Amino acid sequence: MFRIETDSLGEVRVPEEALWGAQTQRALTLFTIDGELMPREMIRAYAILKKGCALANAEAGKLDKERRDLIVVVCDEILDRRHADMFPLPVWISGSGTQFNMNVNEVIANRCSQLAGRPVGSKKPVHPNDHVNMSQSTNDNFPTVMYMAVATTIIERLLPSLAAMREELSRKAEAWDGIVKIGRTHMQDATPLTLGQEFSGYAAMLEDGEGRVRAALEAAFELTLGGTAVGTGVNSWPGFAEAAIGHIAALSGLPFVPARNRFAAQGSHDALVHVSSALKTLANSLNKIASDIRLLSCGPRAGLGELIIPANEPGSSIMPGKVNPTQCEALTMVSLQTIANDLAVTLGGTGGVLEMNVYKPLIVRNVLHSARLLGDGMHSFTEHLLKGLEPDRERIAAHVAHSLMLVTALAPVIGYDKSAKIALHAHKTGQSLREAALELGFVTAEEFDRVVVPEEMIRPKG
Amino acid sequence: MFRIETDSLGEVRVPEEALWGAQTQRALTLFTIDGELMPREMIRAYAILKKGCALANAEAGKLDKERRDLIVVVCDEILDRRHADMFPLPVWISGSGTQFNMNVNEVIANRCSQLAGRPVGSKKPVHPNDHVNMSQSTNDNFPTVMYMAVATTIIERLLPSLAAMREELSRKAEAWDGIVKIGRTHMQDATPLTLGQEFSGYAAMLEDGEGRVRAALEAAFELTLGGTAVGTGVNSWPGFAEAAIGHIAALSGLPFVPARNRFAAQGSHDALVHVSSALKTLANSLNKIASDIRLLSCGPRAGLGELIIPANEPGSSIMPGKVNPTQCEALTMVSLQTIANDLAVTLGGTGGVLEMNVYKPLIVRNVLHSARLLGDGMHSFTEHLLKGLEPDRERIAAHVAHSLMLVTALAPVIGYDKSAKIALHAHKTGQSLREAALELGFVTAEEFDRVVVPEEMIRPKG
Amino acid sequence: MFRIETDSLGEVRVPEEALWGAQTQRALTLFTIDGELMPREMIRAYAILKKGCALANAEAGKLDKERRDLIVVVCDEILDRRHADMFPLPVWISGSGTQFNMNVNEVIANRCSQLAGRPVGSKKPVHPNDHVNMSQSTNDNFPTVMYMAVATTIIERLLPSLAAMREELSRKAEAWDGIVKIGRTHMQDATPLTLGQEFSGYAAMLEDGEGRVRAALEAAFELTLGGTAVGTGVNSWPGFAEAAIGHIAALSGLPFVPARNRFAAQGSHDALVHVSSALKTLANSLNKIASDIRLLSCGPRAGLGELIIPANEPGSSIMPGKVNPTQCEALTMVSLQTIANDLAVTLGGTGGVLEMNVYKPLIVRNVLHSARLLGDGMHSFTEHLLKGLEPDRERIAAHVAHSLMLVTALAPVIGYDKSAKIALHAHKTGQSLREAALELGFVTAEEFDRVVVPEEMIRPKG
Amino acid sequence: MFRIETDSLGEVRVPEEALWGAQTQRALTLFTIDGELMPREMIRAYAILKKGCALANAEAGKLDKERRDLIVVVCDEILDRRHADMFPLPVWISGSGTQFNMNVNEVIANRCSQLAGRPVGSKKPVHPNDHVNMSQSTNDNFPTVMYMAVATTIIERLLPSLAAMREELSRKAEAWDGIVKIGRTHMQDATPLTLGQEFSGYAAMLEDGEGRVRAALEAAFELTLGGTAVGTGVNSWPGFAEAAIGHIAALSGLPFVPARNRFAAQGSHDALVHVSSALKTLANSLNKIASDIRLLSCGPRAGLGELIIPANEPGSSIMPGKVNPTQCEALTMVSLQTIANDLAVTLGGTGGVLEMNVYKPLIVRNVLHSARLLGDGMHSFTEHLLKGLEPDRERIAAHVAHSLMLVTALAPVIGYDKSAKIALHAHKTGQSLREAALELGFVTAEEFDRVVVPEEMIRPKG
Repeated sequence: MFRIETDSLGEVRVPEEALWGAQTQRALTLFTIDGELMPREMIRAYAILKKGCALANAEAGKLDKERRDLIVVVCDEILDRRHADMFPLPVWISGSGTQFNMNVNEVIANRCSQLAGRPVGSKKPVHPNDHVNMSQSTNDNFPTVMYMAVATTIIERLLPSLAAMREELSRKAEAWDGIVKIGRTHMQDATPLTLGQEFSGYAAMLEDGEGRVRAALEAAFELTLGGTAVGTGVNSWPGFAEAAIGHIAALSGLPFVPARNRFAAQGSHDALVHVSSALKTLANSLNKIASDIRLLSCGPRAGLGELIIPANEPGSSIMPGKVNPTQCEALTMVSLQTIANDLAVTLGGTGGVLEMNVYKPLIVRNVLHSARLLGDGMHSFTEHLLKGLEPDRERIAAHVAHSLMLVTALAPVIGYDKSAKIALHAHKTGQSLREAALELGFVTAEEFDRVVVPEEMIRPKG
Repeated sequence: MFRIETDSLGEVRVPEEALWGAQTQRALTLFTIDGELMPREMIRAYAILKKGCALANAEAGKLDKERRDLIVVVCDEILDRRHADMFPLPVWISGSGTQFNMNVNEVIANRCSQLAGRPVGSKKPVHPNDHVNMSQSTNDNFPTVMYMAVATTIIERLLPSLAAMREELSRKAEAWDGIVKIGRTHMQDATPLTLGQEFSGYAAMLEDGEGRVRAALEAAFELTLGGTAVGTGVNSWPGFAEAAIGHIAALSGLPFVPARNRFAAQGSHDALVHVSSALKTLANSLNKIASDIRLLSCGPRAGLGELIIPANEPGSSIMPGKVNPTQCEALTMVSLQTIANDLAVTLGGTGGVLEMNVYKPLIVRNVLHSARLLGDGMHSFTEHLLKGLEPDRERIAAHVAHSLMLVTALAPVIGYDKSAKIALHAHKTGQSLREAALELGFVTAEEFDRVVVPEEMIRPKG
Repeated sequence: MFRIETDSLGEVRVPEEALWGAQTQRALTLFTIDGELMPREMIRAYAILKKGCALANAEAGKLDKERRDLIVVVCDEILDRRHADMFPLPVWISGSGTQFNMNVNEVIANRCSQLAGRPVGSKKPVHPNDHVNMSQSTNDNFPTVMYMAVATTIIERLLPSLAAMREELSRKAEAWDGIVKIGRTHMQDATPLTLGQEFSGYAAMLEDGEGRVRAALEAAFELTLGGTAVGTGVNSWPGFAEAAIGHIAALSGLPFVPARNRFAAQGSHDALVHVSSALKTLANSLNKIASDIRLLSCGPRAGLGELIIPANEPGSSIMPGKVNPTQCEALTMVSLQTIANDLAVTLGGTGGVLEMNVYKPLIVRNVLHSARLLGDGMHSFTEHLLKGLEPDRERIAAHVAHSLMLVTALAPVIGYDKSAKIALHAHKTGQSLREAALELGFVTAEEFDRVVVPEEMIRPKG
Repeated sequence: MFRIETDSLGEVRVPEEALWGAQTQRALTLFTIDGELMPREMIRAYAILKKGCALANAEAGKLDKERRDLIVVVCDEILDRRHADMFPLPVWISGSGTQFNMNVNEVIANRCSQLAGRPVGSKKPVHPNDHVNMSQSTNDNFPTVMYMAVATTIIERLLPSLAAMREELSRKAEAWDGIVKIGRTHMQDATPLTLGQEFSGYAAMLEDGEGRVRAALEAAFELTLGGTAVGTGVNSWPGFAEAAIGHIAALSGLPFVPARNRFAAQGSHDALVHVSSALKTLANSLNKIASDIRLLSCGPRAGLGELIIPANEPGSSIMPGKVNPTQCEALTMVSLQTIANDLAVTLGGTGGVLEMNVYKPLIVRNVLHSARLLGDGMHSFTEHLLKGLEPDRERIAAHVAHSLMLVTALAPVIGYDKSAKIALHAHKTGQSLREAALELGFVTAEEFDRVVVPEEMIRPKG
């Protein structure tokens, strides 16, 4: 059930039904680390790239019309999600991604042979290197599809979830603006604020996070295509980068442009390191938001209990009736994974040597992983936790009423030192702040009631 | 095509053909982050655990014989790799792993119902919580299977590859012990050593690495089972931990024992953080070995070129005839990924709060990932690179012959200062060291030839 | 030699000559971890802040003219670098920085007492809390000075070094544009480029890096001042933030503005996480540049040897005459330290809980450390390595002449497969490419000489 | 005020009063990154090493008695803390540490000249390279002192603090063993345990941590001395390593031995990576302990409030009377810094190339930093927080009384499903568990009171 294909090193037996060729087949036996496949987002990006290159090469008279048409048809088939099982290579191959590019080249060439009625493996009429890879090198096309895949995934999978979560947070901020609650610094009772103010902070963090991701993404729109082997563009032609990337931009609907300096762009992948960093900072924000909500929902009876989370599932296999903040846990876990992924990207980013960085699969795998994790994580958190989140108004009010830190309002009136004496006295005796203040005789009851008003402590006073 | 199952929150529609029940089904809709499944190594470990618990509970008279037999049969089916598609939950669920434990409980209970001729979903005769989960909580059984899965994977998948790589390095060290080559410090020419000495260092690094992994693994043999909900063992019985873990040790063939302090073991996962750290240190060693070989094989014409790597595949889609150190790249990539994974484990490890660490899926996923990556990576590197690696003796000899750092041998004879003058003079004039030494008149030709003998510079001199 | 000072907890013995007071003194005995002092950049920033607040409070009639004048005089003294030894607290104090703020408050108050002829420690006429800290909390003023210190250090110490290094790289790029050299991908010989192109990539990486740092810095111009205890601005007055920050901007010459959302800005420090990330990405670029130069200067005789580094110092205590790329090592070391510092900042950033992040000293210490390390590191590298760097033209030319990868130019003419055969044949036989090509008969001598021209392989061909 | 000294590159002006020489002086102008000095622990270690080498060389007849005595006298002066200001080099020098070794060599040689009545700078009678550095290279002696400094610092500064903290935790565990409190998993109420059990877990974590650090330290006792330039021992003599390290062990009182494979030990620093990892895992434990105590002391009125921390200092500059868990914050900050330092060490550890790792100053700086931070941090935490920590027994009891998770005790009696119904019913209605149980009629009052006994839920039941 095998056919013989050849590459520059000789003959290889390839499974009859496979559209891939000799080099893919070699790679399947040479690279057998873990089972994870090269990210699927890369297949689609490559199909767009190969189509764009064929169009550009044809326009310039480098590729004849027959071959162009065949290549375009096959790329469209792939974009149509056909041949999905013809890309069996794992993530951990050559650091340049060469085998994966050749997998794409071979599948397209062989499928062209099929369509043209020639034997699969004949490299006729379309040769994987000479035609499908025309004017390209893995060294410029693999980073190009990395950036395309990252941009697409962030735009399609992460940013919409981020927007939805931000909107839900803003809705809460607005809805809960009248709820005065005790603030906490150092995890200790502090002066009050509203629950709405607290959630407005979360919404603002996501807004900033979106800004950072979008700004970082700008650099990912700069594609290396046209640089070929080492950034010089050897074996391509003047104008190729602009023409091919023009097609890619049109086909993908994203504002891709040629990289300003290809020696920088092929020798390092700082642009993706920066994108990953922006995801990491977003992860930090998400981690805080989820952790805060977990802490505020700590209870139901022996904790803060200011927020009530939806009871999505039985929480324990041994403790009946338990409700746990499982969505907070899932979101914080993917946030921490994103921080770790960012380290992988950074480490990959340090590995550029001269004209090439050979940590490309490592880099793209981790950036895409983070984008998916955060995108899906925010979606899940919004749908299954945020939307059903409710304040426990009674408990919130009780916490404000008993707080000692309302004493802060007295400081501008009687000074810091006397105010401190009141708070410490109340703490020691278990009295209310008011009782302690009156007992110490530092204020009158009228003054206390006029000054210590939680509802007026949530903004500067004129 | 659905049946109705119930849990403590109410009714759930479960696909007819599924063996899982209500809680798994809820989780499938609540947790939809990325597509990665809970590591498959966990399924096998859970089957052993549930079997061991059933045996222990039955021996103590807590579980009747019929239920015990049913549970044991189903566990054996799972160990026989049946029902593999009945564990569809992703990694990113509750931080305790509760849904995955319930998935196992439900599948076993439902399959018992099938075998007993009762309706699937009836929880009869075997109840997922009351019988399959008897004397357990997710809080003690999930960490138990984490440790079991990690120990098994390291022992079965990593250590054999490590041993094979170490042996191949030792073979090279022995075979190449007569090849004197130039040493390099700061990436600059230094005094000579043998290629065998260089490779003996690599073998020693792996030997040390193995020692560290084995030592770290000791703590992973301590299982939390018996601690139930919070480490106290509530709802289990005195002697349960010893009995159940005894069965687990026997079934798995590994020296598992009860944890010495379950409050420590359930509240943190330092033992796995330490295992991960040992993998990280091993990754560092592998990264160095692969990087060194890559550097020494740099060429073929414009680099160091002292080692010749096997031509496994065409190296470039644009540059014909190129051979690249792709196995070095794959191994360094998985090494860097392991360093990043270790950060994920560390971050997960920081997240323990009071009686539970809720980053368990994060932790186990990353430790297992690293173990697989390094195990498979070493195997691939040994088979596809190390075994075919050859020295370029001619080039190595030429490098030694021209080196200026042989001057070091003169220092004990004529002093550091004069020796430095010779080396700098040779460098400036392009002369050989000997020519420079004689021209400066610091030694006679006879003295030079007696003292500057690379072959004698590879060990201390009497 | 002690005087007695008091705070709300009671009496404390303070050294006679100290300007600090009770709370600083307590902190000196309570916090004794390592010897590292709070970054000195924070002192200057605090002096500007306290002056700006006094001016704003006075303008609003909250602070009388006498106290304002005293506070301003003392702040000016501090800005004049006086009292530098009166800030003895270490980095590792409360996570809010409270003790350091109180140190500043106490020094200013006590110095005011001195100037006003009142006893030191009397808190008269200026009270550390009621007057120096008026309208502020540590919770808003400590993050404010963190951001001020970071912005100032980056602008004054990092960006000028970056610009100088980028310019030197550009000068090299221009000067060396005529030098055709062999490219290297996978650390293996590839198609040629010019040394100028290579260095243009380095210059472009720094240009991008500068852009990222500047963009990230924007968010650091948003100050939390005005939020007081929990972001609400309790105990400050409407307009205070704008007024005080207006003064701070004027005094510092930097475009500081009030934070858009203080609940976000005080609860997290994502802005600094992002600044740190930008420094990390810059570190990645620097690591690559320094590593590339180290690799290209590998030799002098048994390596690539294409670049000649300046002989700054004797390289070895045992090997006379050795020259090492020590500046590359220093720059790569600080780059790696910056990556680690970024992790510290990120971890600190994850630690925000509700209305406060209590990892402020950790965060600011590491961001400032990175800024100094990279700023000074780039300066040192530019002055002591880049400026004296020279190409070895002879060696570069020899490498190009012998390269097999020039065969790439033949691929568009005779196809990839035949070209590969030529390269592999030359490699096997040790022939030149031309000899191999002619021996195999795939091209004529004329054709070879017309097509294979390194000087024409450094750009796309029409 | 300068004298002229020379090295192999020529003349250098050295300040008259300096004991250092030409190479140190060069380094002072070449390496000006940040102000941090090479860790002071390295000076003492170098003095021991140089003394040990002089003794060994003299015994073997390589060094005459006069020179030996002079070197020994100077080393003893340094060990006596004299000449401390004669080691002015920063951390960020050559990656090999060469300049620092030469600093030591020069100071010793010059001080010998002083003592011998010869001109400083004459290198007579003792030459810095030929005599002080005899039989050594920076490449073997710098790593040797790294390991010596790390071992000493951990043994003298970290382990005693760890032991004291562990003992204090054990004391608490014992003292509080009768206090039944509510457990928490997922930060939600769970089944009870005793406060003593909780603290026994903390003590156990530290015990494990100590074991890991001690085990990792074993490898740090293996010293590279004797390997000289590249591990071969060129220019030393057979038996030198054993003899010199024997002296070092005797002088330091630590069980140092020669490295088993010097090519491994000089080419990588995995041993220190592993030590750093063990510190990191310890940091994780400390982070959890401090975070737990912070959470349990959250309040005083609107939080869990089960533990009462000592009021060490006024907690806020704006909120009078506030008490904050500042020691928890300091300890968690240094824990996170240690995790980041471990990344620096790991990254440095990846950087070994062939016969040398050129990230030595980076590595040793960060390991020592972590050792100091954790050692001092544990000391501070024990003294200023743990010793004064008190349980709030009333609050703890109230939390247990109201908990819903006591229902777990009913599960073995009435099954998981009915138990869950009780808990959910109580939660919905605000009833006590007992009220809900009776209302639902699943148990009698007698049965409830017999089964639901918190004091009996803290261990398995027979």
